[in-house]
Parts: sequence; structure tokens; C-alpha cells
Amino acid sequence: MLTGEFNMAKLNFKHGKIDLTHGSGGRAMTQLIDELFLPAFNNTYLNQKNDQACLTMPTGRLVMTTDAHVVSPLFFPGGDIGCLAVHGTVNDIAMAGAKPLYLSVSFILEEGLPLCDLKKIVYSMADAAKQANVAIVTGDTKVVERGKGDGIFITTTGVGQVPENICISGEKAQPGDHVIVSGYLGDHGVAIMAYRNHLTFSTTLESDTAALHELVSTMLTVTPEIHCLRDPTRGGLATALNELAVQSQVGFYIDESTIPIRTEVAAACELFGLDPLYVANEGKLIAICHSKDSEQLVNAMRKHPLGKDATVIGHVTEDPRHMVKLKTKLGGMRLIDWLVGEQLPRIC
Amino acid sequence: MLTGEFNMAKLNFKHGKIDLTHGSGGRAMTQLIDELFLPAFNNTYLNQKNDQACLTMPTGRLVMTTDAHVVSPLFFPGGDIGCLAVHGTVNDIAMAGAKPLYLSVSFILEEGLPLCDLKKIVYSMADAAKQANVAIVTGDTKVVERGKGDGIFITTTGVGQVPENICISGEKAQPGDHVIVSGYLGDHGVAIMAYRNHLTFSTTLESDTAALHELVSTMLTVTPEIHCLRDPTRGGLATALNELAVQSQVGFYIDESTIPIRTEVAAACELFGLDPLYVANEGKLIAICHSKDSEQLVNAMRKHPLGKDATVIGHVTEDPRHMVKLKTKLGGMRLIDWLVGEQLPRIC
Repeated sequence: MLTGEFNMAKLNFKHGKIDLTHGSGGRAMTQLIDELFLPAFNNTYLNQKNDQACLTMPTGRLVMTTDAHVVSPLFFPGGDIGCLAVHGTVNDIAMAGAKPLYLSVSFILEEGLPLCDLKKIVYSMADAAKQANVAIVTGDTKVVERGKGDGIFITTTGVGQVPENICISGEKAQPGDHVIVSGYLGDHGVAIMAYRNHLTFSTTLESDTAALHELVSTMLTVTPEIHCLRDPTRGGLATALNELAVQSQVGFYIDESTIPIRTEVAAACELFGLDPLYVANEGKLIAICHSKDSEQLVNAMRKHPLGKDATVIGHVTEDPRHMVKLKTKLGGMRLIDWLVGEQLPRIC
Repeated sequence: MLTGEFNMAKLNFKHGKIDLTHGSGGRAMTQLIDELFLPAFNNTYLNQKNDQACLTMPTGRLVMTTDAHVVSPLFFPGGDIGCLAVHGTVNDIAMAGAKPLYLSVSFILEEGLPLCDLKKIVYSMADAAKQANVAIVTGDTKVVERGKGDGIFITTTGVGQVPENICISGEKAQPGDHVIVSGYLGDHGVAIMAYRNHLTFSTTLESDTAALHELVSTMLTVTPEIHCLRDPTRGGLATALNELAVQSQVGFYIDESTIPIRTEVAAACELFGLDPLYVANEGKLIAICHSKDSEQLVNAMRKHPLGKDATVIGHVTEDPRHMVKLKTKLGGMRLIDWLVGEQLPRIC
């Protein structure tokens, strides 16, 4: 073993801290790899220990996606930056109807980051990857000086395989299609905002961070003809629908009374002056399908734990101006415009 | 066009700055994508505008690699963080003998980054990608508050295809094999150190940052049986050889008098108290091959502009302790140990 050859003391995961040597390419970095990353992410690809992983890839179409994660704080009710970074990338793969295969990870660590925090985050990633049945096959670590970063930033990149008969994309929404959400909206963003502001609820409000690929797989079994899938992360439902409207050159008509929002999320949004439709989710999806398929699709989703509150919230309209219109609970009509400015910085 | 629909003023690439809204998922972020990233990286995959790119992949073995880039300063003689980020990942793909196919990019921007700097960096990436014939197919942008980052960090992830008859890996060095370097060592690290310290030379010392996949392709044409390839980046030649020694369970015997090091690099290292063997390179490679193949390989390398100073610097030894030994210019013997500590933080 490398560490044995070095005759170095083992990393102190209780009191140790990251310093610049851990990004040097030298002994300290090798030790971090040997004592933390390899055992945590344990798989044959990573164990090749080259600067790249050699992979067996299936034939056919593949998807590739990347996300930087800069969420603050690093630990929050319901998750941490580690599992979030895995879920985020697994979900972007799943939103193409694809099966996640391989992930890469790059860490940008700030000098002074406690090793115990890094360990917790790395094992949280490893658990999330294991649960999603995806291997973290290659990685990189850089360290920046104190005050030039913020604890840890994680970029995860993923590759996945698209099944042969599946063709899901943002430009495929058709007027008349139904819009489905998989569950309660705003949990992630509000959980983090509340935690940042030391707000407590009578019930614990947690981030919804979760990997959605199994839910998607279930959905595709009953309806391979899903037109669009999107996870409404940064910018929430409102942003995702506006993006899809432009991509598909359509509009949306959404019925506010059907949008699932928890009482405590609505209350917290009221308090913070936020609109829950713009708040980030990390374990929810929007599905757009032909109206004839929606009932069957919702029923299938409800049988999966991550889709049990799935419901139709509206439909696609013909609209050359690509507007997202909301029928309010009071019966009025409101335009759900693009987010201007920033509601919740560093939410993911 | 999206921007037309918004009726927003165009981004001001002369005096504008990044603010938190550019990471919001809202209008400002869409504008950054539409007015900068899409035109710069222009390709059909990115233009899909989904959260993931759907790719056609060749059959067979693929490699995947990732690197975070945190180099400081962002612009330096011979390059910038943008082209460096492309070259670094293209090179890690090339070091498996593979053909680079697709790159993803994630940006972590600090609030206040001048848009003109971002534009320069993005177009430098685009140029480097074009020259390397690789498409930047998907990306992500996050913005952190002033003082929580350092201008820009870039993670590039790459996927490449390994030709059928090629099997290059760090554990394949055999005692007796020859060790080749492709050119002068230490240029990148010393160019940056000198620039940071306002040191000027009579000649301009520039970073060697370059994409090596064509050189590798040339090499494989004459010698498909190359055993190992590695680009000696962070930690330099010394670190790369120590890594390979452990991976292949061998030792190395290197002749100092044969290692190509420029006079000004040697002088600057003397001044800074650095050992050039530990200094980072970004456009050089180490090749290990059977002794019978080395002459032919070096000759082929010398015909390529990036390999014109290629030379054999030593050979692989049988050594259960995996030591890298250097025959010094004075005829003595020195152990080239793993780097302890950090010579040059944030060199890549």
C-alpha cells in the first residue's frame, strides 16, 4: 500500500484540516486519495489510478451532463453538498430518460476545511452513488488558499445511456399536452433558507434531494412516449416552464389550485417574500405528455415513493409569445415570467 | 431569439461585471448563455439547450477524465485558464492513447468578475477546443459572492475513444523500458511563478500549455505498443515517475544530463528555490516503451512541433522499493522522492 511505503501518519479525520499540500500532486494528495477517496468510492475504474478511467460503454446514444455545486451551508436538513452533487447529475441524466452509468467528480477545497467535514461529504456522495447504482470513476482535487473559496465546491459530470425507443427533449411539448409534477414544490429551497435564517417549524422541513432515475424508469415503462422531462432546480417550476415554452415554441396554462405546496413552505415563502414557484427543488420533476397518457402516467408515478404526490397541474397551449399563465386560486390570471434577479443565491 | 423576447439590453462586455443574478437560473443567466456561451462554443449538441447533451458515441472502450482548474493569475504568458482547462482535459484523454470527443465545462464565477475577462477566457476555451477538434457539448454556471471564490474556477470533463489495438496504462512499465520526455520541462510552472513575481527574462518564458493528442496519435502510428503515457502536470516529472513506479511496481533510473531544461528555467528555479523536476508542465508528456522501440518513437516525435525536443532520459529498473534514482550531472546519485509539501500552489 502506498501509505505504508510513505511511513506517514494516517490522516486525522477527527481534528485534521485541508492545507495547500493536499492539492500539490505530492504525498499529501496521494494520501488523501488512498485513505479517503479510493475506499469511499471503491470501484474497479477508480482503482485503475490513472488520470483517466477506461470504461466499457454500451452502444447507442449517450447523454453527458455537468453541474457545479456551491450550496451554502454544506450540511442542511435532509442532505449535504455531497449527496446533492450526485443527485443533481443523476437527475439531469434521468431527465433524458437515460440510465446513469458513470460519474466524475472534481473538488475545489478551501484551505482549512476540516477533514471530518470532507469525509462526511465524500461518504455521503459514495452512498448516493451506490443507491443510484452509478460508479464515480475518476476525479480531481484542487486546494485554494483560505478566503479564495468557501469550504468545498463540487463539480459532478455524468454519462448515461438512452434506451433505444426513448426520445425526450425540451422542444417536444405540443399544445394540448398535460403538465405533471411529481410532488410538493419548494421543499429544497425553503429548507435551506429556513436553516440559514434559523427558522424552525413545528414539523421538520427537509430538502427533497433525491435521485429520480428509478421514478423515470417506472414512468417510461408505462409511457415510453413522454415528450419532456425536467427537474425544476434553480429558478423552480416557473423557470423550467419558461425554458420549455421557448424550446418548444408553446405556452403553458397552469392551475394554481392543483400545484402541491406544503403549508409550511407557503408560510415560509410568505415570510421571506419568496414565490414558491421560483424556489429550487432537488428531487422533483416535471413531465409533459400527451393528454391521453397523463392519467396512466400519474397513476404509475404515485406507486413510486418519489412520485406519490404526482398530479396534473396544467396543459400546454399554443402561444407565439411563449407565455406561462397561471390561473390563481382566486380565479384571476397571472403571468409567470422569467425570474429577474436572484431569489436564493447558492441554493445548489 | 430569447434575448429579443426579453427586450433586455445586451450584455456589456466592455464594462459589465458578473453578479449573483448570472447564477440564478433566470433571465440574466439565460442571457449569458445566449450572448456568450452558445456563440463561442457553437455546436449542435450545446444548441439542444437541454440540461444534458445527447451524443452519438462510437462503440468500444471510452475514457473519461475530469480536472478542476484554479490557476492564478487567470492570464499568464503563453495562455490563460480557459485554454489551459481545455488542454488539461484533452491531454488526460490523450494519455490513454484515446481520441478526444466531447467536453463538458462548469464555471464557478466570483461576483464582480469583469465580463470582458470572462469573454476572453470563454473564447480562449472555444479556440482551444476547435484546434483540438473536440466539442464542448454541455455546461453549467454558478456564481458565488465576492470573497467566496477567486474570479473563475473551471472544471472540464472529457470523454474520448480508445482505438481498438491500444492499451496504455500506468501499470504497464517493464524493467528495461526506456523513458522519453517530449521536450523542455518546467516551462509552465516557472512562467507562472516568474509572472507572479514580476520577474522578467531576456527572452520571454511562456507556459507550454498545448493539446498533445495529435502528437500522441503520431506516436501511436509508429509504435502502437507504447506502455505508459503521462503528462507531468502538478508535481512535475518527479511526481509522475513516482506514481508510475508504484503503479507498475518498478523503479526508474534517470540521467540528469539528458533532461531538457531551459537555461532560464534552471536560473529561475535557482532563484525561487525550486527543483525543476517538480515543476508543472502543461504541454509535455512522458512515454515509456520497450527499449527496442524508443529510437523510432523519438524520431517520430521530433517530426511533430510539440515533440521536436523529445529525448530518452532514462530507463525502468527492477526495484521492489519503487525508487526514482537520478544520476546527477556531477556523476553522483540522488533519490527523487515524492514531493512533500507544496512548491507552487494554484499552478493549474
